[in-house]
Amino acid sequence: MVNKIAVFEKIIDEASKGVLKDCSPQTLFVPAKYILSLGGKRIRPLLTLMAMDLFSKNAEESLDAALAVEIFHNFSLVHDDLMDRADLRRGYPTVHKKWSDNSAILSGDALVIEAYKYIAKVPVGLLPEILELFSTTAMEICKGQQYDMDFERRFDVTEDEYLEMIRLKTAVLIGCALKIGGIIAGAPPRDADLLYQFGINMGLAFQLKDDLLDVYGIPETFGKKIGGDILCNKKTILLIRGLKNADNAQREELNRWLTATGYDPEEKIRSVKNIYDELNLKFVVENLIEKYYLASLDCLSSVNAPDNSKRDLINLSENLMYREK
Amino acid sequence: MVNKIAVFEKIIDEASKGVLKDCSPQTLFVPAKYILSLGGKRIRPLLTLMAMDLFSKNAEESLDAALAVEIFHNFSLVHDDLMDRADLRRGYPTVHKKWSDNSAILSGDALVIEAYKYIAKVPVGLLPEILELFSTTAMEICKGQQYDMDFERRFDVTEDEYLEMIRLKTAVLIGCALKIGGIIAGAPPRDADLLYQFGINMGLAFQLKDDLLDVYGIPETFGKKIGGDILCNKKTILLIRGLKNADNAQREELNRWLTATGYDPEEKIRSVKNIYDELNLKFVVENLIEKYYLASLDCLSSVNAPDNSKRDLINLSENLMYREK
Repeated sequence: MVNKIAVFEKIIDEASKGVLKDCSPQTLFVPAKYILSLGGKRIRPLLTLMAMDLFSKNAEESLDAALAVEIFHNFSLVHDDLMDRADLRRGYPTVHKKWSDNSAILSGDALVIEAYKYIAKVPVGLLPEILELFSTTAMEICKGQQYDMDFERRFDVTEDEYLEMIRLKTAVLIGCALKIGGIIAGAPPRDADLLYQFGINMGLAFQLKDDLLDVYGIPETFGKKIGGDILCNKKTILLIRGLKNADNAQREELNRWLTATGYDPEEKIRSVKNIYDELNLKFVVENLIEKYYLASLDCLSSVNAPDNSKRDLINLSENLMYREK
Repeated sequence: MVNKIAVFEKIIDEASKGVLKDCSPQTLFVPAKYILSLGGKRIRPLLTLMAMDLFSKNAEESLDAALAVEIFHNFSLVHDDLMDRADLRRGYPTVHKKWSDNSAILSGDALVIEAYKYIAKVPVGLLPEILELFSTTAMEICKGQQYDMDFERRFDVTEDEYLEMIRLKTAVLIGCALKIGGIIAGAPPRDADLLYQFGINMGLAFQLKDDLLDVYGIPETFGKKIGGDILCNKKTILLIRGLKNADNAQREELNRWLTATGYDPEEKIRSVKNIYDELNLKFVVENLIEKYYLASLDCLSSVNAPDNSKRDLINLSENLMYREK
């Protein structure tokens, strides 16, 4: 049996190479093509094709829309990395590190516009609906990034606020990718909405897993340093739950580390992780991930398509949940 | 007789106040609304309404598209000011000065997306054509900004390269604003294209006038310091023509000033202006402006609409050509 995921991945990779090809000036488009060429998991465009595949034999017809989602995702990476002053992306220098801040700003802008050029290629009758979904999602992602930055300066972020932030910053684009595939396939609105909710729950679980891996990942397979979020006081689900579930002594110690300066990084990671361990947070967060994962499967199972056609989507989301990097 | 320009200006100003109203988080949208509230000349949305007015009694029906153009223009101001490290815009602190670099990046991004939300409101049958024009123009503006930045590090910019840069950075959005008005009014393609060319020529003349005012403006009415472009070695039409028309001694002196450090700013402005005067550049550039201005009027006169309906557009472009600030 043909592995559809592998086939779709290949189609997406090939098509990605054509994005912004032969555009000048080089100073604008080489950085834009660089971020696209770094690859990554290509989950979002894959989800668009796979969602379409539930209802149609012509999944490739959603390729342009799938690329629009991927290009927009890459725009947000370039600008977010700049705002977060991140040095590395997918193991390579970020655009502003390799070129300059201005390069990251302007090539990011070019990527947003290119994303809209690709979304404009969907069948004309579907354009208004898809354009509306795409712009709403794009704006939500900006809001999510803003909340994320605002949270850096706050120590009273609630779990609900945090979940809303990751819904905006991460989950809606996954929902959008899936729903667009459904819309192009001609799926009934109810099914397209279920695909969206499948994506929202998957996106939440995905981001919570990210938070977990930062502390409990296996260093050899994780690919980046363990404890990065702890060192920069990132408001993750672990820190928020930790502060909430802690007893007075533990909370005091957590707060001491959050405001500490001039410490030994390894000691900070060890001490904070120690409190997380005492609070059994690995288990707590794994349960939360499971909750959203099961909710996502629930949505998918309600989609009116043959069960066997859903197997690839289930496999993909399972891989994301049980990934080690 | 009712002054249509004043009526349209009022409609645009009122409608601008509704853009991004009641959006949260404030940290994202207050900077975006700030730049929109600074006003400026609102030339672009005005041109959309006036172009539509040539063919239709319902110019207001192009208001959403007109606002899309204005919102996009404001996005480009926020990001360009950040990239150029400009402190002031329309006499007020720029977004990155008033808030932060990150604020300018992200609220700029939100403005691009908002612009697309407004362009999506055009009549659905016209959406594909207008979206295509809008995205092509948007990408050209990014290219123009990239060329402008690239030129900062070059001393061999030719006049053709310069004209192409200002066409991309400034003229195409003016052409786009006009053409969209024509398209929504249902103008024949030939007339819509003529409106676009009218805008391109007007935009070129407009930017050349900008270059001229920097050196030959009247300090009292110009509103900003005379000679700013000279001090930062900006590749303007005056510098490019100056280097081309100069004799060996003049070229040597210009090059000396271009590479000088630790000089008296007033002396640099005086000396460079002196060479421009010797080369009669005010006259030369005024002629060039006149050339593009006449070409723009030529395009407008070929548009198949009653002559008296064009009077307002001619007045507006005349005002832009003979403006002192």
